[in-house]
Amino acid sequence: MAERGLDVLIIEGPDGAHGANPAFAYFTQNQHLVGTVIVRRDEEPVLLYRSMERDAAEATGLALINFDRWPVHDILQEHPDRLEARVELYKRIFHDLKVRGRVAFYGTGPIGAFYAFLQKLAQEVPEVEVVGEFDRDVIAVARETKDPEEIERMRRVGEETCAVVEATLEFIRSHRVQDDWLTKDDGTALTVGDVKRFVRWELAKRGLEASDFIFAIGRDAGVPHSTGNPDDPIVLGKTIVFDLFPRDASGYYHDVTRTFCLGYAPPEVERAYRDVMEAFEAVCEKFLVGGIPQTYQHFVCKFFEKRGHSTVLSDPKTTQGYVHSLGHGLGLEVHEEPHFPTFGKCETQLREGMVFTVEPGLYYPELGYGIRIEDTYYCDENGEFRSLTPLPRELVILL
Amino acid sequence: MAERGLDVLIIEGPDGAHGANPAFAYFTQNQHLVGTVIVRRDEEPVLLYRSMERDAAEATGLALINFDRWPVHDILQEHPDRLEARVELYKRIFHDLKVRGRVAFYGTGPIGAFYAFLQKLAQEVPEVEVVGEFDRDVIAVARETKDPEEIERMRRVGEETCAVVEATLEFIRSHRVQDDWLTKDDGTALTVGDVKRFVRWELAKRGLEASDFIFAIGRDAGVPHSTGNPDDPIVLGKTIVFDLFPRDASGYYHDVTRTFCLGYAPPEVERAYRDVMEAFEAVCEKFLVGGIPQTYQHFVCKFFEKRGHSTVLSDPKTTQGYVHSLGHGLGLEVHEEPHFPTFGKCETQLREGMVFTVEPGLYYPELGYGIRIEDTYYCDENGEFRSLTPLPRELVILL
Repeated sequence: MAERGLDVLIIEGPDGAHGANPAFAYFTQNQHLVGTVIVRRDEEPVLLYRSMERDAAEATGLALINFDRWPVHDILQEHPDRLEARVELYKRIFHDLKVRGRVAFYGTGPIGAFYAFLQKLAQEVPEVEVVGEFDRDVIAVARETKDPEEIERMRRVGEETCAVVEATLEFIRSHRVQDDWLTKDDGTALTVGDVKRFVRWELAKRGLEASDFIFAIGRDAGVPHSTGNPDDPIVLGKTIVFDLFPRDASGYYHDVTRTFCLGYAPPEVERAYRDVMEAFEAVCEKFLVGGIPQTYQHFVCKFFEKRGHSTVLSDPKTTQGYVHSLGHGLGLEVHEEPHFPTFGKCETQLREGMVFTVEPGLYYPELGYGIRIEDTYYCDENGEFRSLTPLPRELVILL
Repeated sequence: MAERGLDVLIIEGPDGAHGANPAFAYFTQNQHLVGTVIVRRDEEPVLLYRSMERDAAEATGLALINFDRWPVHDILQEHPDRLEARVELYKRIFHDLKVRGRVAFYGTGPIGAFYAFLQKLAQEVPEVEVVGEFDRDVIAVARETKDPEEIERMRRVGEETCAVVEATLEFIRSHRVQDDWLTKDDGTALTVGDVKRFVRWELAKRGLEASDFIFAIGRDAGVPHSTGNPDDPIVLGKTIVFDLFPRDASGYYHDVTRTFCLGYAPPEVERAYRDVMEAFEAVCEKFLVGGIPQTYQHFVCKFFEKRGHSTVLSDPKTTQGYVHSLGHGLGLEVHEEPHFPTFGKCETQLREGMVFTVEPGLYYPELGYGIRIEDTYYCDENGEFRSLTPLPRELVILL
């Protein structure tokens, strides 16, 4: 805070953003509540909460102030306009809690409403300079490294997530092969939709939440964020990209991708798979404390280019070959710092406690296949880079 | 838009807000993608999307423009600072798509980052007036009424949600009573945590998602947003508040609460339950097209006060009696317009197509109980108010 000249951080936890408000969750232990966290320099954070949520507020372990300390209803009587009432409430809060100087706002919320609110606040409270940080804000940077307890939580989420992948493979293999298809007991084809339903049960059983995941076959596997068509039958010899990124009740994510072919893999898929695996292993050997994420992205691009694949480095708009970045930080968000951008400024350096995905891939939608291999890695206190994803990486699943 | 003097709406769909970005979901059919929707007055909405998500973009049914139309990577090379690059990209988009005049921003995102971005945009693009709407914004108002297709979706979510509640009651009743407890096969007590696990499986089986729900017994039932302590045993004769608010894959929510006692209910609980039920029925008879939500909240407060209960109308900080508002709109968000505020301006009127909860309750945490009954109501095209919650409301569940 001192480095950035910030006197106070205010982290808003508005209604409806549960699970999508990592800055707020970082302070509130992912408790389900609406409130506002105030951090004054060199002081402990304070949570403003509502009576209805006093149990959740208690469970955060933070110092607490009930919003009832301020006469919210009287303010609304005097200022029926909700924007004016909100500004008036904050004036009183700022006065009582000695909030002044450079005050930066964080948290996830309706961007238009907060733009209107913060503008009016800046106009009407001249003793406060309202600040918004655009890139790598102070909370994102704090969240960029994880402490040993967070790593242990993430290790457990990783184990549970991998168990779901293993159970899914078992489920698929439990079906009968007929010609090039897998069939259910009723003789109809096993579909992507059937597998997705199974995955959702397995996630729920293990207390994992996933707003979405990818189980895409053939051409769809060739489009990185295609989540898969529920009606597609599960056929032999086609690449299946299974990308699972759930979080547990504490809000921490895992992210893993495996690509497999049932029964056999065509030779061109085997070749591309080998290229991806070798890129994966080569870049993992290069990770080093102090390394700049962008250099690893460039390394992988060049690795693939040497093998004859297009990449985003030489052809930023390509939809064939290697079409995305190497990975992303992971924690209370599925995409957070550090990023591995191909272009633009990249000031981050790899450090002890960072958790990030490593996910090279090759995509050939027109040829009907795509491959991505992804583990979640972390850098331990000795500067060693280790996988949190205990799962084999085999292309061919024998039936 | 004309009424509010807005020329263009821009709805941002940043990364990570899936399921918490109702304004974006409203336009994109809840597809899982990152992008920006642009609505120019009297024109069809356009979605700017990324190649990686071209399948999800296609599935929205919107007119599409690939971000690759603009040289994002060249811009990043010229402007390594990401904020500057973002502003430069929007300058070009605004120029090409003729975005000018009063341009209002919507969607859920990091409030500080967007504050910084919109401020800089306003400074650097003088031909655009950047607008943030604070309250009842134009998209919230559009979402306030549902068309028949949305009502049908919400009816189905309601049926599935009620089926989960029924299955849960069956599950509880399948356990053996021993003294005042329910016990599992291994002889240990059935707990809130056991029931919650069952509920999560049932939700997943039916394709419903719930970031959270309330299953709280005794004193916890007396704190409206207490989600329940997993270790609490399920005992007879105590109020259990079960408040379930899941959404389906299309993103629409249902919201239902039932309060029950297993085996028997103490007389004071029976009395309070009758008060809640009678308040519920009395207010539902009063609903009328053109009615102002706040008047119904006041009606219920006075109803309870006549029966000797404290309420937020006469004692805004009370934590006993009737401590919250009568309900809230429901749709792509679990809390949306119309609201039923006790204080402050309330300009909404009940209209055909509105969907909202009706949820009177009485809370006595110190006496160890709380009661809330909640149905999701809608106003049909004839102005009749009907429940979307096909579920009995019985206090005592016989074992």
